[in-house]
Amino acid sequence: MKVLKEKVITDGVVLSDQILKVDSFLNHQIDPLLMKQIGEEFAERFKHGGVTKILTLESSGIAPSVMTGLCLDVPVVFARKRKSLTLQNKLLTASVYSFTKQEESKIAVSSEHLSASDVVLVIDDFLANGQAARGLIHIVEQAGAKLAGIGIVIEKSFQEGASPLREKGIKVESLVRIKSLKDGKIEFVKEANV
Amino acid sequence: MKVLKEKVITDGVVLSDQILKVDSFLNHQIDPLLMKQIGEEFAERFKHGGVTKILTLESSGIAPSVMTGLCLDVPVVFARKRKSLTLQNKLLTASVYSFTKQEESKIAVSSEHLSASDVVLVIDDFLANGQAARGLIHIVEQAGAKLAGIGIVIEKSFQEGASPLREKGIKVESLVRIKSLKDGKIEFVKEANV
Repeated sequence: MKVLKEKVITDGVVLSDQILKVDSFLNHQIDPLLMKQIGEEFAERFKHGGVTKILTLESSGIAPSVMTGLCLDVPVVFARKRKSLTLQNKLLTASVYSFTKQEESKIAVSSEHLSASDVVLVIDDFLANGQAARGLIHIVEQAGAKLAGIGIVIEKSFQEGASPLREKGIKVESLVRIKSLKDGKIEFVKEANV
Repeated sequence: MKVLKEKVITDGVVLSDQILKVDSFLNHQIDPLLMKQIGEEFAERFKHGGVTKILTLESSGIAPSVMTGLCLDVPVVFARKRKSLTLQNKLLTASVYSFTKQEESKIAVSSEHLSASDVVLVIDDFLANGQAARGLIHIVEQAGAKLAGIGIVIEKSFQEGASPLREKGIKVESLVRIKSLKDGKIEFVKEANV
């Protein structure tokens, strides 16, 4: 996705070989117009998937998911990282280890909002080690729902998250794919259509 | 806002005299079309405010804020409830007590994304005791920015949050205002324009 790639180049900050900071348009400050374009792109890539629901993870997955949900005309459910007093019903849960935060957390979705009749598009901001994606897929499985695929804003292809998912036959659509962050430089995976 | 009021009536669940659960369209599952309508309504109410930035709080404030930011053509910044490894720069912080979660938390915004030249519209999902709103205003003040006003999706008018803000001369625009949740019933504040 050209406009996103350009944004990553101009506004992304390489913090280390592993970490790309995109706090100025995705993870802390959000660019609403870019989110709309991202939503349109995900909707285009998954429009034939029969999607009935989008599942994401708070907080950075919410903006791109809501824009995608608007285009596909389906609700968005965001998994919570901590229980809240108003989230009382039966929960579908998974454990997710965050390498960025260096901690394990439990993510939860109320079973009220995900059922066996759903076809679920999982969306997240980053795909790195695949922990969050696997957690979300585990929740989809617990609900007995069907997985339409995974939409990722930025894939760090040099980490091991994406390949095992694609090898399982899961449709993983990443809007930009980063090959390397070595020496403070952002190198993208070369793709025919970008 | 008529469509929102109807949604609160059909989908809101009164958990106690104090707590209204709107997990099916705002706090856990999100209705993207309703969020778009909410964004349009906030944009209409604040279009003459010279807004340059929207400030909200993760996670439930993000969806209505991004839709408002799209209409007003301004970026959205969401305050984080916990530090993340990629949020390293100078932080503007405030303490917020959540009566729902019964805990005090620190909220933080990077000073990179809020400056003295900004005119800030604060948006949040609920206004009850006003803790979150006051925390966000405190962050706006620390940045030396100007406050355009506060946009609230659901105001619980029987709690003491809104009045002191309005008495200070702050423009508080709540899309629905709830007078009481007693006896499991949702009673709205009667308003000329609703």
